[in-house]
Amino acid sequence: MCGVFGAFTQNGGPVLEDVYLGLYALQHRGQESAGVAWVDDNNAIRTQKGNGLVHLALDQEALAKIDTRCAIGHVRYSTAGGSDPRNIQPLTASNSRGSVAVAHNGNITNAEALKQYLENRGAIFHSLTDTEVLLHLMAHQPHKPMIDAFVDSLRRLKGAYSLVMILDGKLVAARDPWGFRPLVIGQRDRIIYVSSETCALDLVGAKALREVAPGEVVVIDKDEIKSIRIPVQTKCHYQCSFEYVYFARPDSILAGRSVYAVRKALGHCLAKRAPCLSANMVTGMPDSGTIASMGFAEGSTLPYEKAIVRNRYVGRTFINPTQRVRELGVRIKLNPIHDLIKDRKIVVIDDSIVRGTTSQRIIAMIRAGGAKEVHVRISSPPVCFPCYYGIDTPSRVELAAARMNIKELEKIIGADSLEYITVDDLVQAIGLPRNELCTACFTGEYMEGETQDELEL
Amino acid sequence: MCGVFGAFTQNGGPVLEDVYLGLYALQHRGQESAGVAWVDDNNAIRTQKGNGLVHLALDQEALAKIDTRCAIGHVRYSTAGGSDPRNIQPLTASNSRGSVAVAHNGNITNAEALKQYLENRGAIFHSLTDTEVLLHLMAHQPHKPMIDAFVDSLRRLKGAYSLVMILDGKLVAARDPWGFRPLVIGQRDRIIYVSSETCALDLVGAKALREVAPGEVVVIDKDEIKSIRIPVQTKCHYQCSFEYVYFARPDSILAGRSVYAVRKALGHCLAKRAPCLSANMVTGMPDSGTIASMGFAEGSTLPYEKAIVRNRYVGRTFINPTQRVRELGVRIKLNPIHDLIKDRKIVVIDDSIVRGTTSQRIIAMIRAGGAKEVHVRISSPPVCFPCYYGIDTPSRVELAAARMNIKELEKIIGADSLEYITVDDLVQAIGLPRNELCTACFTGEYMEGETQDELEL
Amino acid sequence: MCGVFGAFTQNGGPVLEDVYLGLYALQHRGQESAGVAWVDDNNAIRTQKGNGLVHLALDQEALAKIDTRCAIGHVRYSTAGGSDPRNIQPLTASNSRGSVAVAHNGNITNAEALKQYLENRGAIFHSLTDTEVLLHLMAHQPHKPMIDAFVDSLRRLKGAYSLVMILDGKLVAARDPWGFRPLVIGQRDRIIYVSSETCALDLVGAKALREVAPGEVVVIDKDEIKSIRIPVQTKCHYQCSFEYVYFARPDSILAGRSVYAVRKALGHCLAKRAPCLSANMVTGMPDSGTIASMGFAEGSTLPYEKAIVRNRYVGRTFINPTQRVRELGVRIKLNPIHDLIKDRKIVVIDDSIVRGTTSQRIIAMIRAGGAKEVHVRISSPPVCFPCYYGIDTPSRVELAAARMNIKELEKIIGADSLEYITVDDLVQAIGLPRNELCTACFTGEYMEGETQDELEL
Amino acid sequence: MCGVFGAFTQNGGPVLEDVYLGLYALQHRGQESAGVAWVDDNNAIRTQKGNGLVHLALDQEALAKIDTRCAIGHVRYSTAGGSDPRNIQPLTASNSRGSVAVAHNGNITNAEALKQYLENRGAIFHSLTDTEVLLHLMAHQPHKPMIDAFVDSLRRLKGAYSLVMILDGKLVAARDPWGFRPLVIGQRDRIIYVSSETCALDLVGAKALREVAPGEVVVIDKDEIKSIRIPVQTKCHYQCSFEYVYFARPDSILAGRSVYAVRKALGHCLAKRAPCLSANMVTGMPDSGTIASMGFAEGSTLPYEKAIVRNRYVGRTFINPTQRVRELGVRIKLNPIHDLIKDRKIVVIDDSIVRGTTSQRIIAMIRAGGAKEVHVRISSPPVCFPCYYGIDTPSRVELAAARMNIKELEKIIGADSLEYITVDDLVQAIGLPRNELCTACFTGEYMEGETQDELEL
Repeated sequence: MCGVFGAFTQNGGPVLEDVYLGLYALQHRGQESAGVAWVDDNNAIRTQKGNGLVHLALDQEALAKIDTRCAIGHVRYSTAGGSDPRNIQPLTASNSRGSVAVAHNGNITNAEALKQYLENRGAIFHSLTDTEVLLHLMAHQPHKPMIDAFVDSLRRLKGAYSLVMILDGKLVAARDPWGFRPLVIGQRDRIIYVSSETCALDLVGAKALREVAPGEVVVIDKDEIKSIRIPVQTKCHYQCSFEYVYFARPDSILAGRSVYAVRKALGHCLAKRAPCLSANMVTGMPDSGTIASMGFAEGSTLPYEKAIVRNRYVGRTFINPTQRVRELGVRIKLNPIHDLIKDRKIVVIDDSIVRGTTSQRIIAMIRAGGAKEVHVRISSPPVCFPCYYGIDTPSRVELAAARMNIKELEKIIGADSLEYITVDDLVQAIGLPRNELCTACFTGEYMEGETQDELEL
Repeated sequence: MCGVFGAFTQNGGPVLEDVYLGLYALQHRGQESAGVAWVDDNNAIRTQKGNGLVHLALDQEALAKIDTRCAIGHVRYSTAGGSDPRNIQPLTASNSRGSVAVAHNGNITNAEALKQYLENRGAIFHSLTDTEVLLHLMAHQPHKPMIDAFVDSLRRLKGAYSLVMILDGKLVAARDPWGFRPLVIGQRDRIIYVSSETCALDLVGAKALREVAPGEVVVIDKDEIKSIRIPVQTKCHYQCSFEYVYFARPDSILAGRSVYAVRKALGHCLAKRAPCLSANMVTGMPDSGTIASMGFAEGSTLPYEKAIVRNRYVGRTFINPTQRVRELGVRIKLNPIHDLIKDRKIVVIDDSIVRGTTSQRIIAMIRAGGAKEVHVRISSPPVCFPCYYGIDTPSRVELAAARMNIKELEKIIGADSLEYITVDDLVQAIGLPRNELCTACFTGEYMEGETQDELEL
Repeated sequence: MCGVFGAFTQNGGPVLEDVYLGLYALQHRGQESAGVAWVDDNNAIRTQKGNGLVHLALDQEALAKIDTRCAIGHVRYSTAGGSDPRNIQPLTASNSRGSVAVAHNGNITNAEALKQYLENRGAIFHSLTDTEVLLHLMAHQPHKPMIDAFVDSLRRLKGAYSLVMILDGKLVAARDPWGFRPLVIGQRDRIIYVSSETCALDLVGAKALREVAPGEVVVIDKDEIKSIRIPVQTKCHYQCSFEYVYFARPDSILAGRSVYAVRKALGHCLAKRAPCLSANMVTGMPDSGTIASMGFAEGSTLPYEKAIVRNRYVGRTFINPTQRVRELGVRIKLNPIHDLIKDRKIVVIDDSIVRGTTSQRIIAMIRAGGAKEVHVRISSPPVCFPCYYGIDTPSRVELAAARMNIKELEKIIGADSLEYITVDDLVQAIGLPRNELCTACFTGEYMEGETQDELEL
Repeated sequence: MCGVFGAFTQNGGPVLEDVYLGLYALQHRGQESAGVAWVDDNNAIRTQKGNGLVHLALDQEALAKIDTRCAIGHVRYSTAGGSDPRNIQPLTASNSRGSVAVAHNGNITNAEALKQYLENRGAIFHSLTDTEVLLHLMAHQPHKPMIDAFVDSLRRLKGAYSLVMILDGKLVAARDPWGFRPLVIGQRDRIIYVSSETCALDLVGAKALREVAPGEVVVIDKDEIKSIRIPVQTKCHYQCSFEYVYFARPDSILAGRSVYAVRKALGHCLAKRAPCLSANMVTGMPDSGTIASMGFAEGSTLPYEKAIVRNRYVGRTFINPTQRVRELGVRIKLNPIHDLIKDRKIVVIDDSIVRGTTSQRIIAMIRAGGAKEVHVRISSPPVCFPCYYGIDTPSRVELAAARMNIKELEKIIGADSLEYITVDDLVQAIGLPRNELCTACFTGEYMEGETQDELEL
């Protein structure tokens, strides 16, 4: 779970602050670190990186003053390498042939094997990221033009990658042949943008042109936008369905479908699949269940209330997990409207249950507030399998729905009833053909030729 | 606009972290600075203070380790003194007779005259706060018991004050005879709390006992909760109606009325007073119009949509107002759901219009997103007069509704129509007798014996 | 032990950076905190203060840009109040009559009694400094001109004070009638300076004009330098002799005597009083014994060597007192030149012994380095009594020379011999009449009318 | 100009804090950055690094708690890479074969050519240091044992390197075959240390065992100290003579010669070569000329005085170079004792003149203080050539003595006379055979087979 953004101006005019703002709009895709890279007057690549949110990691004022025609950026969710600055993207490499910077959303599943191969040929790895493999594959083809070395290197990668890069002073975008992670091209006047989501294009005032196609490399320079095919054959696509459920911003459009509309549809679908006619009202887990609960209310006869209030400073602030804070639990963040819930039967909508502990605590709080019944409805199928394609789900043993059936889970979280939608419901609500969507976290069906056992290595 | 919180434990057990958490729950009442004061083992008063949000101003971990039976805290919205540390409350004073600490929400309208009087008697003022007047009035009665000097000093104050104090090692709460600002007493086991709002009692797990009455001083020590009357006669009360409209948290109960319920009622009322039958949907200004817009949707036949999405990192982050950022305007914070608004007629609800500039920009953004019509409905009467009782409204010349009539304002902000509720609507939605509410910011009718001309001095 | 500095320009031209630089030159007089105060365009007083060394406490770049005609500053050694920002000087007070800022070197011995008197009249003290008494004495004479209130207040103070102040927009300097602490006036073009020591005048390029006389108030404004007498009778003066021994910078001139020359003379005197003919060389404790050891070498036949090297980063850095660091002791800071001391008999000169622990450790280190004999010579009489006039000596029980005789001390510190000079030697080396010098820390003879018992209260 | 330090404990007991303290004692060899690397329980290498002085760059308290048997550290003077964190040493690399960390003092003169060679074979360089070449040379021999790959890589390096490394969990030290930079082995109980200078061994309480010989690799593990020869033939050695003149600490012993004794000898030598019989006294430039000026005084009949006082807070503090500060010049740092120099003829000793500007300013200040004559004596030959072996001398055009003869320089700096010693004097004072010393910065005679033209590339 990361976000990438790039910009190239074809007629002068600075673009680095737009990359900063693009990352700011993609902040929900990663809060651990942020970085930008750009081309300076001598065609050398320069970077600024840091830990934490975009505004802490980067210096907007300084970036706004830098004049460059080509820049990229990255927000990182988290990686094995923790807060080590060497793992903050964009990664860069330069030699006498030229310079390259890369920002990567996704996860390369054969990275370990490639790393072994490269170390046996003298490579020294400096980060713990799978992304660095790509740079070494390119460096080991020193006599080819860089773009050829790049496409040839992509051919050897498996798994998920949506990349924005600076290569030979050009902006390059690439998306793996399976199309796991989103990547979209936008335009404002003579500036071309590449972004993980359309919401970042909206912020900089750009219009979405089209998505980067699965298996496509797009090369943007001052004259043109050129397209190259990655020479890998695939039978079907694997666009991540979880982006619609949880990850993407509701104001983004993915593969032509509004995320807001899909979430509303998931709520409607849930009202049909698992209504709760005896209840007095429906509410959403703040904030993850809000849109689906509005859809549920529309699809049922129940009124929608914002019955749980979130302290609006939660998230901006760090509360130490002292003894007293643990004792108070979710009350630190959330408070029910007591008048509303007292002696009422309530439907609570959430988008997913991962470990189940948060659901348990919130339900307990609602009951302590006087609710008579608490019915939980989830606007996605049960998450039973880890994701190896870039979403940081916990391992299978920690996934609540992988360890027990729904009735057991209902009991554990303390709900009067618990219901989910099916994978078919999900596919239908998204509105894309089933063979274009990855539903591995719900079904365990990974990409052609990959099994969980191999992926775990 | 400030928040105060205090705690006294009658049987040991630390209370300072609860004061920290109480301030955290009252953070919406002030973000400029925060401070706490507590009694140490020698009955001396100690403080910790700082600028910014509670978690930046104070050290939770250090406070959690301090054992004290009595502590108070304050969050400040802003004052003339800016970020000068001397103005951060609680203010303290100590001499051979004892120590006092005070945290104040409100505004003393005769502070300047009292300050003159005191300086002529040798007083040296160290802060720019009106609150310090109280400390000097007490110090100038050196031979009285401190509590007598305190009540006698209150008798000389005019205007709004909800105070929590440490006095003689006891927790003391006081509310001005007119009852402008809220103040409520709560209890958890043998710990007594005083808070600006009930939402902070909820967070620390306390039950609301009752409000501090207008004109009441409450003295809490290890044996009892004692009540003293401030010897000032009043004909009626002036509880702030704007707390319900905008300032208080929706999960608080003020004077027995749920703020959430009042805001819903304001929306219903607005739907009745100013419906918009031709529209396709209703939405709220994020986040100030959300609850009223849900009430409006219920009171009309229009569907409710969350059509404007707020970047959830806005507020946690600081964006530099560079040229590019000014150019992008509200898009930095807000983005409409394009699918929803395109070619639709939209009702947008907000709780108030102060300067009008934000409304103007958001309406322009909605139109740019393709909306056919934008109708604005405000869930309070027009704000035409400054508040001198603790809410930081701009001066009259900057208040949009004071400078022009509604038709002119409608044009300025670019709405297809603009409508408000009346003061009667407001009083009815709150559900308190009219002579118990202050509506001065809507009507210009200030407290008995005070006129705007005098107050401006 | 503090340093004060002030500047007034009679023809425009900024002076605030010169005050910063003056404090920088007086840094040896106090490292705990620093502050400056100046007059702004509206005759109001503004301040900047902070903890730590001058360059950390103050923002040179910001101060350099401020245009003011009158400014003062203070470096503080330490006080009871620790790092509480309210104790950082200059202290300020303002009211309708005007503003005052004060920086104080010294210690007012009747401060507690005056504080009681003032609190009984309504005064609220905000700092733990004795200096604040002066501000309240002035405020309690609200109907006099400020300068009259000031001189009248000084009349009531006992003990040591060298003050620089801003009063009515003028620069005012005052020195107690006994003349404990130094204070000197300097001039560069049409800028008048007041400083604790001449070395700070040298730094800003000013010429020393004369000392402020004991009992004199000097008022500097744009037209003149006026002198007022404090109406207190005294029989003799009490200029601090310890300033020559240890406290003042060697490049300063106090009461017409070069500190460097006095220290050289103390070394000569010591060579005469307590020679050590069998030794091979003389060296100084770094850096306190350096100059006296050069004098000793000249006065004896022994060669002078810099046999103990001080790590030149000690002092710029903070070393945590971990277990390992305690084990290594003085080696963290000092290292002997092994070739020089091996099998040699060494005379080590220091300016004083306070607690004796440092001497003990250094002698042990020299012995461990192979020295055959270590003879210690002290260039002042034994310090047997606490100072109540502004030097932060420990209480009597901690003073090594107060607890034991010289033979015992010699044994404790591990020296082969230990010798001091006498009070007569000291007076003679300084070259001032005995009845103009305070030697209380050596003799216990405090100021006329004061005894140690009273002073301890 | 860098410092390196390493420690290996053969019987448990932590060593990381000793490395911290060792770096602290070597702080004079580099103030730009500092770093440490150590072996953790899994034989992996961990690091802590930062910009600035040791106590700012590293966290002593955290390091003191870490238990490791092998650790190294580095202080850096400055490099082309400025403050980029990637250039802070120790550098590390790890792969499936193992991990290596390296700290380097010196300068590899054929680094650029080696870098080209390696990039053509796929290497990606991450730092701008010449040191990284070594890591890639080792990585490109992936099938050899690491220690063999290391020694084979050293064979290909030219220039100056004193290295401490962690290799296979062992402490490895290496010194180039020409012996440019010092490197010494010490011992305390069963802990073995390697250090740039003996002063750091003194601080941690270790005894110096012997120097690492030119061309020697020393491998220290829990059983033994093993020695390996670098297979490179050399005719003579090139130990840096400037270490004695200026760079090393006076309490260090280099190649068996006390630096303090050499500096004294240089002063004696100067008194003989260039006496100044008419002068009244001799003084040293603080602090660089102190020891030589004491030698000069002994060798002549002139008395030694500390006539120029250095503000002891200079160096701990940062003074902004504002207009006023530039105007005041060296007075910010230095002040003459006016009584001493007035109307006197003074000899001022310094260790070298690099650009000449500082000498010029100090002489002007002494004259302004009233001195009648100022005679400058330099305790080294004129520095006419840049150093390519690790000392950061300016390029030839900036070296004062390279641009003009001594008479011209005397005039430029404003001295009444200026005299140097000769290279023969220097060699004699050091007391090593001439063919073991590098005097290239005085003579331009670089290492066999290297010319200035080649080195400039």
